[in-house]
Amino acid sequence: MTVRVGVLGATGAVGQRLIQLLDPHPDFEIAALTASESSAGESYRDAAKWRVEAPIPEDVADITVGATTPDAVPDDVDLIFSSLPSSVGAEVEPEFCEAGYVVSSNSSNGRMDEDVPLTIPEVNADHVDLIEVQRDERGWDGALLKNPNCSTITMVPPLAALDDAFDVTDVRVSTLQAVSGAGYSGVSSMEIIDNAIPHIGGEEQKMETESRKLLGSFDGAEVELNDMDVAASCNRIATLDGHLENVWADTAEDVSVDDVEAAMESVTGVDLPSSPERLITVFDEPDRPQPRLDRNVEDGMGVAVGGFRETTDGVQFNCLAHNTMRGAAGASVLNGELLAQRGYI
Amino acid sequence: MTVRVGVLGATGAVGQRLIQLLDPHPDFEIAALTASESSAGESYRDAAKWRVEAPIPEDVADITVGATTPDAVPDDVDLIFSSLPSSVGAEVEPEFCEAGYVVSSNSSNGRMDEDVPLTIPEVNADHVDLIEVQRDERGWDGALLKNPNCSTITMVPPLAALDDAFDVTDVRVSTLQAVSGAGYSGVSSMEIIDNAIPHIGGEEQKMETESRKLLGSFDGAEVELNDMDVAASCNRIATLDGHLENVWADTAEDVSVDDVEAAMESVTGVDLPSSPERLITVFDEPDRPQPRLDRNVEDGMGVAVGGFRETTDGVQFNCLAHNTMRGAAGASVLNGELLAQRGYI
Amino acid sequence: MTVRVGVLGATGAVGQRLIQLLDPHPDFEIAALTASESSAGESYRDAAKWRVEAPIPEDVADITVGATTPDAVPDDVDLIFSSLPSSVGAEVEPEFCEAGYVVSSNSSNGRMDEDVPLTIPEVNADHVDLIEVQRDERGWDGALLKNPNCSTITMVPPLAALDDAFDVTDVRVSTLQAVSGAGYSGVSSMEIIDNAIPHIGGEEQKMETESRKLLGSFDGAEVELNDMDVAASCNRIATLDGHLENVWADTAEDVSVDDVEAAMESVTGVDLPSSPERLITVFDEPDRPQPRLDRNVEDGMGVAVGGFRETTDGVQFNCLAHNTMRGAAGASVLNGELLAQRGYI
Amino acid sequence: MTVRVGVLGATGAVGQRLIQLLDPHPDFEIAALTASESSAGESYRDAAKWRVEAPIPEDVADITVGATTPDAVPDDVDLIFSSLPSSVGAEVEPEFCEAGYVVSSNSSNGRMDEDVPLTIPEVNADHVDLIEVQRDERGWDGALLKNPNCSTITMVPPLAALDDAFDVTDVRVSTLQAVSGAGYSGVSSMEIIDNAIPHIGGEEQKMETESRKLLGSFDGAEVELNDMDVAASCNRIATLDGHLENVWADTAEDVSVDDVEAAMESVTGVDLPSSPERLITVFDEPDRPQPRLDRNVEDGMGVAVGGFRETTDGVQFNCLAHNTMRGAAGASVLNGELLAQRGYI
Repeated sequence: MTVRVGVLGATGAVGQRLIQLLDPHPDFEIAALTASESSAGESYRDAAKWRVEAPIPEDVADITVGATTPDAVPDDVDLIFSSLPSSVGAEVEPEFCEAGYVVSSNSSNGRMDEDVPLTIPEVNADHVDLIEVQRDERGWDGALLKNPNCSTITMVPPLAALDDAFDVTDVRVSTLQAVSGAGYSGVSSMEIIDNAIPHIGGEEQKMETESRKLLGSFDGAEVELNDMDVAASCNRIATLDGHLENVWADTAEDVSVDDVEAAMESVTGVDLPSSPERLITVFDEPDRPQPRLDRNVEDGMGVAVGGFRETTDGVQFNCLAHNTMRGAAGASVLNGELLAQRGYI
Repeated sequence: MTVRVGVLGATGAVGQRLIQLLDPHPDFEIAALTASESSAGESYRDAAKWRVEAPIPEDVADITVGATTPDAVPDDVDLIFSSLPSSVGAEVEPEFCEAGYVVSSNSSNGRMDEDVPLTIPEVNADHVDLIEVQRDERGWDGALLKNPNCSTITMVPPLAALDDAFDVTDVRVSTLQAVSGAGYSGVSSMEIIDNAIPHIGGEEQKMETESRKLLGSFDGAEVELNDMDVAASCNRIATLDGHLENVWADTAEDVSVDDVEAAMESVTGVDLPSSPERLITVFDEPDRPQPRLDRNVEDGMGVAVGGFRETTDGVQFNCLAHNTMRGAAGASVLNGELLAQRGYI
Repeated sequence: MTVRVGVLGATGAVGQRLIQLLDPHPDFEIAALTASESSAGESYRDAAKWRVEAPIPEDVADITVGATTPDAVPDDVDLIFSSLPSSVGAEVEPEFCEAGYVVSSNSSNGRMDEDVPLTIPEVNADHVDLIEVQRDERGWDGALLKNPNCSTITMVPPLAALDDAFDVTDVRVSTLQAVSGAGYSGVSSMEIIDNAIPHIGGEEQKMETESRKLLGSFDGAEVELNDMDVAASCNRIATLDGHLENVWADTAEDVSVDDVEAAMESVTGVDLPSSPERLITVFDEPDRPQPRLDRNVEDGMGVAVGGFRETTDGVQFNCLAHNTMRGAAGASVLNGELLAQRGYI
Repeated sequence: MTVRVGVLGATGAVGQRLIQLLDPHPDFEIAALTASESSAGESYRDAAKWRVEAPIPEDVADITVGATTPDAVPDDVDLIFSSLPSSVGAEVEPEFCEAGYVVSSNSSNGRMDEDVPLTIPEVNADHVDLIEVQRDERGWDGALLKNPNCSTITMVPPLAALDDAFDVTDVRVSTLQAVSGAGYSGVSSMEIIDNAIPHIGGEEQKMETESRKLLGSFDGAEVELNDMDVAASCNRIATLDGHLENVWADTAEDVSVDDVEAAMESVTGVDLPSSPERLITVFDEPDRPQPRLDRNVEDGMGVAVGGFRETTDGVQFNCLAHNTMRGAAGASVLNGELLAQRGYI
């Protein structure tokens, strides 16, 4: 069974990664692409100044880009991927859901809304059924499912493994984030050459709240946030792709480095086409993972961890994931696969 | 009164910064330069491939570089600055002290030795008198004074201000360190372009122990370490100069951002030629300090802080200092000035 | 005598350098700043996100920015510096000239117009009198004087020295240009990290035509272009400031490296406040000049040259200048000083 | 038929690329690896700090590295790839040839020796038979075949196409070379961040002489150098891989951009496993090729060209190739395939 899919915001940095993942996808077929009003009517080739290292898929290149409205998308499209600026997403995504489309969204709007599921399939797939509540409350035929922010996704899989085994109470996380996370023109070269920027607007709050929702419990009616205390500090550095994060996790149970590594290595992927066999790859070398060397672990869908040290109250470690793959486009595709598996499309 | 000074390891990255600071110094006069055996006998111009942005001081350029042994330094030199690899420093510095020289050292060897004072003059100038104990125990006419590691120096002045006012109990610190901290050939370009390295050998331990010694109390006989719990995570990034650090400080007293900023702004320099008028510069813009824009605050001798946020248990903030100036060469020069002021030379 | 000056486009990368140069200028006093409509009414501090390493001049920071129209500039302003996007400059600069203002412009519009002088004071100061022709033809009380493009300015002083001595017939020049040349948001970090871009729109044509105008002869009525054949190839690389250029100059006369160096070293500045004592600094080290080490030669107003080699038909060499100082803001200031010296204001 | 091969200098930047290419090679089987004395006896995994983005081939990782002497290589090895520092290569390669080994070498020593063939199989495969002369003169059972320098390889395929069609008389070439060309520790990060270096020792001479040998004619006895006049200017920039070059080629025949593009597009690969189907890929976009986007064209074995403009005397264009693949390791592998095809092993 092939699902016909549409991509909202297909020309941006994450949109291009979505195309790269969806074009060869075994179950999905690209049927509609949208962009801002100014690009509507152009071929995707012309509208997207393609900047991925791999060539633009030729069959996608010839698709005519539509405006980002439900009218511009054919009725037989069953699944929508959205990678819009949050202000646009906040306005447009509900219109698509209202019109009956099921939307897997990477946009940051609405992630913490009480009736919007926020999922990483390997971590909290069961939250997807919050859609039932959402449909009841909003009267939608469609549905809206969100994946978290790229910096949150990098940290949560190892935290989930730790929390399962040792009960995490406090988290401090410092990020070294790649420029692609801000989109193509988000970070000027004059800002970042020989420099780092210790602030990314709203990012710290996203990490602090989204992580607690992802690690929270869903009882069929609502998601109760995990009560761990999370504080984040976010930095932009001069890397192209791959968010690197230093994490301190205090735990209620005693931990040893060996136990922690074992807990992480025991995590597997889930039965979805884009989920990696090994969700978490543990590095023994103390100077790994590194963004350039390790961001493509498991074809960009894995999380790499290393640098474990015991602390007075728990453990510290480093984690890394490809921010536009595992952290954005791949996260949305995985969520789309989850929606299909659970019968929502 | 002009003090004749020598520089051990004068050709390295920190050595060149020492020359840059000592050449125009009001009280010090460069009288001897040493380097590795292979450079001995060359002019400083030839031995040091000068890489500072400012031109090489012409009068220093013509000095003949000697070997790094007490014999190679004239007797009328009263103060030695040392910026040697720690393995060399561990061997050579005691020989100089034995021979009667007073040494202000940036090398990492011996910093945690019980009878070696480790000082930042604006923070713990009183520790310098540990030299009396040292002389008793070692029978030296000379003396050995250390400044801490560059990443430690960046963090300790704001921590000292916080600890004085609010009693800091726990510190978590993540660093984004410049390549110059590893010396001229320490970080290959192939390692760091489009990359970050989440490990600097031994650096985390230095930050965790040196900070507690600096903030400890000296009773005339020994230094009792401060009992705060410090955990560090150290990263190398593609900046030339300026270490940026994200700090979480848990405090026994309640804190507000306003109180914290006030505590930091009330810190002044000390009465030494190289101490800045304002030791800590507070930035209100949330994205400052940044390495390229702010590393030269107070001519490279200040510490810049910003990004304050209250946390559940205290406060988080960012700090930045020029690692080869405030964090190394300037720190040694300041310590030399302290030695002169206290009558040790 | 103090000249009251205004700056059009004061918030951009070159505009900020103009402020940096004009604030301490002995003869000029900043009296008006303009920017785009959206910034008009704000203080300069708010309108310009200041990105120069040195602090924003406090007295300038409080000036209220006006719109870029003659009405927004006080009548007692005698000299206007313009650093506008060329499309804006093409529309607005003639309005200022019409209104009686004398304009020293860095904008690229109109540089090759037959009645617009294009000058580097140390090279072709005499061309400034083309203003007489301009006033006759256009009926202006004001006047429009242009400085060339930053990449042209870097190359022309050494070429002028060579042409005077050996008669240059053909020039091939390849540039490695800094990102600041494209303005603050001109080059995205995603474009330039681990990359180079072998094309800068229109830049090659500017170098090929402007150089011939600068080295042409003015007979009181018109400028006859120099007949040397110039071909350029322009590249953007990941440097912040400083355009580096590889030049091949074929000459009618025989040349030796010694003669060429002597010719370049004999060039001096001119009697204007911002002209350096030494216009061309010759480096003997084969790997100099380098952008980071040498862009600030003569406080950013010099041109550095090196790497001389004899070729079959002439000589090849490298040259470097600070693109937003010598190549833009400083060039405009120098031209403003020339206008004052020649009595045009 | 599988040829057992050895790799001299297997741990360096090019050596690692050789391993990456040889491990999956259809005709070659890695049978021996050598490195410097200090690494001999270690596993390849330990000796080579593997820095390629793809994982280290597991079967190669366990091979024990030998010293770089003929004795350390098994007799049943039929083909040696050499990627040694030139001073070592000059001493060791003749010993291997003397001992009967056929050597395909990337090292720069001896490339211009009269009896040493220097080949790019797609350009001058016929020169390989200079080995007959070499064996006569040196009395070797083995043989020594060289590939040119990485910057030469980038330029020569398009120049060969141009020369065939339009008779090239003069070449001016400016290079923007990646740091990997200097080996792992060749370029320090302090040298190249926010910088470019307009000099690479000996590189200009290599480009100027090797290109004329490659484009020269072989009459069975000797290679007559092509008489085109070549002048090069070589720069190091902050890219990881991919040498970008600006070329001016003056031609005896008239040229148009269309004719030039047609001439380049008509070039095909040759019938060797590692030769790409399309040797030269022509880009129409004026800002291509770019190192990061295009260095992997044809799996890193192609040459990308673009930016064509007619000049007074010919044409200018840009070219790009992956310096450690097409420009070094891949060039040696291709030459090894040529040796096999021609019956030299």
